Amino acid sequence: MSFRNFPMVPRVIYGKGSSQQVEEIVEPIRQNGYPIIYFADHFFKDKSLVQHIPVQKNDKIIFIDTTEEPKTSDVDQIRDQLIEEFGKVSGIIGYGGGSVMDMTKAVSLMMNNEGSSANYQGWDLIQNEGVYHAGIPTLSGTGAEVSRTCVLTGPEKKLGLNSDFTPFNQVILDPNLTQGAPKEQVFFTGMDCYIHSIESLNGTFLNAFSRSYGEKALELCKKIFLEKSEWDEESDEDLMMASWHGGMSIAYSQVGVAHALSYGLSYVLGIKHGVGNCIAFDQIAEFYPEGVKDFKKMVDKFEVEIPKNICQNLSDEQMNKMVAVALSLTPLWENALGKNWHQQITEKKIKELYEKM
Amino acid sequence: MSFRNFPMVPRVIYGKGSSQQVEEIVEPIRQNGYPIIYFADHFFKDKSLVQHIPVQKNDKIIFIDTTEEPKTSDVDQIRDQLIEEFGKVSGIIGYGGGSVMDMTKAVSLMMNNEGSSANYQGWDLIQNEGVYHAGIPTLSGTGAEVSRTCVLTGPEKKLGLNSDFTPFNQVILDPNLTQGAPKEQVFFTGMDCYIHSIESLNGTFLNAFSRSYGEKALELCKKIFLEKSEWDEESDEDLMMASWHGGMSIAYSQVGVAHALSYGLSYVLGIKHGVGNCIAFDQIAEFYPEGVKDFKKMVDKFEVEIPKNICQNLSDEQMNKMVAVALSLTPLWENALGKNWHQQITEKKIKELYEKM
Repeated sequence: MSFRNFPMVPRVIYGKGSSQQVEEIVEPIRQNGYPIIYFADHFFKDKSLVQHIPVQKNDKIIFIDTTEEPKTSDVDQIRDQLIEEFGKVSGIIGYGGGSVMDMTKAVSLMMNNEGSSANYQGWDLIQNEGVYHAGIPTLSGTGAEVSRTCVLTGPEKKLGLNSDFTPFNQVILDPNLTQGAPKEQVFFTGMDCYIHSIESLNGTFLNAFSRSYGEKALELCKKIFLEKSEWDEESDEDLMMASWHGGMSIAYSQVGVAHALSYGLSYVLGIKHGVGNCIAFDQIAEFYPEGVKDFKKMVDKFEVEIPKNICQNLSDEQMNKMVAVALSLTPLWENALGKNWHQQITEKKIKELYEKM
Repeated sequence: MSFRNFPMVPRVIYGKGSSQQVEEIVEPIRQNGYPIIYFADHFFKDKSLVQHIPVQKNDKIIFIDTTEEPKTSDVDQIRDQLIEEFGKVSGIIGYGGGSVMDMTKAVSLMMNNEGSSANYQGWDLIQNEGVYHAGIPTLSGTGAEVSRTCVLTGPEKKLGLNSDFTPFNQVILDPNLTQGAPKEQVFFTGMDCYIHSIESLNGTFLNAFSRSYGEKALELCKKIFLEKSEWDEESDEDLMMASWHGGMSIAYSQVGVAHALSYGLSYVLGIKHGVGNCIAFDQIAEFYPEGVKDFKKMVDKFEVEIPKNICQNLSDEQMNKMVAVALSLTPLWENALGKNWHQQITEKKIKELYEKM
């Protein structure tokens, strides 16, 4: 048996207002006059956050359109533009939620790896270290700030660039930046974390490392989404840490049934990851009875509408593709149900689950 | 206000039996035929662990005498020997508890920093990156596996080499290695972790980052030292993770009253850190009422003898030195009691506390 040698984010700052330290942090990474590139969610285009980005000299802000989740073609295009305009860059700093985090990681890797990012979707296919990249979350839940992947939708599959080079060189956790995000978005992104912890804690890959992180993430999610009477500044801080711990938990375990089904929904219908997770999780009480029971209470409490009947009018081709995408995610099923998962999970079974959504 | 940019251990492996991966991990770090040096607690001299150390070519095992805690003179001496024998080394891998962890970090730093290690006791005095160093704990509790310090007793003070270069390049957490340690040692080292979490959670420096880690460490300590009826393999795993989380918690906060007093006991009387913490913590219910109450229950449950009356026959000179050492640790007092800690903590007060021990 071989154990993973997990690469952790080597530098982390935590604190309200800590994102104001970006300037001093990026200064030493400047190389030979090459610029620092800032990625920011397009949502911030006219917001005050942009004024705090310490753009200097030939530095550049690129707004990332997060209407859809990151595609390999988006990554390739931005990479090609940066190379055309600057040759090289000193580093890329991303402000945003999971989509911007993943774009930041992906483009930084592709600055130093030839060809299309689609060629690197998988495990340990990246050959060369990327350029310096830092993540500054403005939404909490995905765990993208600590993970060794960046999930991309490619021409053939939705799958991350999983590699030891993928984690950020630096993460800045500033709870001030997550305040004021739209309630629904906070909920759907937060549920990504909640579901990570449920899938990790109920998985066969669990060990004491992932359990201790998963339990803390779950406890914090329950506190803010179930127990507290209202959302306050402490909730933003707690969700930020829940996301971090949830990400650490799946580092040594894996996600499960909801994520496998959610990837199919995203691939075929373009449904956003957090929303897809919720659509799927809502229908899989047979796998996670306690987790789904609490989830339904959270949905009621936050008065969020989980989309329904989204698989009603699918063509056979769409349904078959969706089933194929979900079924292909072997490690997720194996974590959820053990080595003999095939006995429970067939094309027919997955189709039945999708038909309920 | 400036927030710390905390350097995390960039690589971690967790799992029972994971220490068998040492060979494959150290192979790529070999440089120009320079050896890999293994530090091991002298306790392991005739134990099976030593046979598992993958010594090759000119590699060398150095047994570290942990009868006393690491001194700056020990560090300097081993560093000088290694330079004389090999010129350079490829890396240092330490198997042991807090003392061996700290020796490993200290010697690796001193291979690349001139003069005595005593010159670098303090904060951010280390100028150059050390050689590659990895930590493989065989006792859990100190948090030395994640911390940015290595505590040394020098000619003038007991203080760590605190620096961004101090954390290990690699940590291997193998719960098999902590099994079978003497019960008293497990208790005293485990209490270091328990006290870290109490001091962190009750400190004024606390934020949501250190709180989430501290709460998890505390929960695990209570589970294994208070709630469970007996010690089992899961307890070893839980204490290993408690130590990790406790170490992460103080990364962003600080220790407190027990540690300040314990440093004095160690410096003047040579009392080991874990034991000194317990002697001190036993007498400071006025600062940590709940924590000390539970601590006393743990002591009873584990039937451990906390040394008493150790300050009865001190000379004035000894007592004054002890008070001076404790009083000099400003950040610890400030964390425990706030900016106005001087109003509560005087030489007289500290002396009174010591006289109870």
